[in-house]
Amino acid sequence: MSDVYEPTERTTIKRLPARGSFDRKVVHEILDEGMICHLGFVVDGQPFVIPTIYVRIDETLYVHGSPASRMLRTLEQGVPACVTVTHVDGLVLARSAFHHSMNYRSVVVLGTATAVSDQTKKHGVLHALSDHLIRGRWEEIRHPSADELRRTLVLAIPIEEASAKIRVGPPSDDEEDYALPVWAGVLPLRIMPLVPIADPRLSPGIDVPPYAARYDGPTRGTRDDR
Amino acid sequence: MSDVYEPTERTTIKRLPARGSFDRKVVHEILDEGMICHLGFVVDGQPFVIPTIYVRIDETLYVHGSPASRMLRTLEQGVPACVTVTHVDGLVLARSAFHHSMNYRSVVVLGTATAVSDQTKKHGVLHALSDHLIRGRWEEIRHPSADELRRTLVLAIPIEEASAKIRVGPPSDDEEDYALPVWAGVLPLRIMPLVPIADPRLSPGIDVPPYAARYDGPTRGTRDDR
Repeated sequence: MSDVYEPTERTTIKRLPARGSFDRKVVHEILDEGMICHLGFVVDGQPFVIPTIYVRIDETLYVHGSPASRMLRTLEQGVPACVTVTHVDGLVLARSAFHHSMNYRSVVVLGTATAVSDQTKKHGVLHALSDHLIRGRWEEIRHPSADELRRTLVLAIPIEEASAKIRVGPPSDDEEDYALPVWAGVLPLRIMPLVPIADPRLSPGIDVPPYAARYDGPTRGTRDDR
Repeated sequence: MSDVYEPTERTTIKRLPARGSFDRKVVHEILDEGMICHLGFVVDGQPFVIPTIYVRIDETLYVHGSPASRMLRTLEQGVPACVTVTHVDGLVLARSAFHHSMNYRSVVVLGTATAVSDQTKKHGVLHALSDHLIRGRWEEIRHPSADELRRTLVLAIPIEEASAKIRVGPPSDDEEDYALPVWAGVLPLRIMPLVPIADPRLSPGIDVPPYAARYDGPTRGTRDDR
């Protein structure tokens, strides 16, 4: 398999192409670090953008939800979709308004969704979603029943086209602006876990599990053994 | 002006309607807390979803960028757009896989974009964007020149239709699962600022300004005096 996604007319980065990447490893890393994606689809010419959790397995993204969801019912029909994942890494504070920016990493994936109908496969995807978001959880919880699996719609979106866009580093000011007496630099931002809040109905004597007490974000990479 | 956005066929919340809201104040609060939106538009039947910063002023969202941007050039033509803003507030850890969820607040706005051509208005929008993301910054930096303003495309997206969707609180497990010996609760998540990183070319003797040293996220609400 090629190390890069083939740039297409639709994914070619027109604006600041130096920030773009089609590198497969870069795209996967950005995808694997995300908790939610923003999934775009079209109904009667109107775009809709919906946040949802997802997981990547190899060259496919999976999302899930209720069969009652308009988003999933629309996508199930096999319409073009766009999945975008964005990490905001910091505010870039330049000396001029014009050169203010953000440090970020984002991936745009284009693909056509199809429903996963095999119940064993659906079970595997739900396992992968759980592992992706909070590894260790799946081993402790009650797994989906056959009825719950039937009530869960799972969609597969193959990564047909993909590109990443990344900005890192300090501001880039106009040369004459560096003399201005203005603080400049980057204000880094990060999603941090706070102290877990126990369910009011939690049975006594059950400790917060380590994967929640010391949560370190989504699990990078996919497992081979799903 | 009505306290609520009129529910339409396109914004009616089909899935878990109890989580939905058309309340204008709720919608505004969620929008005003965001740093980036995910902007959806359609080119030749293909949806695209792009992350970008934005600001709300009254009943309009504004985004900006380079006139070279495919996104902005497409939207400038007045095509239907969808702007989605999402805050991930926590992982909801239930006793069953099926009832795992996320606490979140999201808003979906539908509207048709138009370009802002008046240079004074564009200047005002850039000021508002700066104030929204990091209040205090605008007063210190070099403001856009006439040439920079010309090189900046500003789009207005009126909030024609909008709805919010919110989940808060502990997991809701099936009654028989509460007896399972599994920790359950919420792992709260929050975007936090880290220590500001000075530009390597920063002139000596310039301290980190308080609005960056003690950053508290986007400024809530809009000013009347822009």
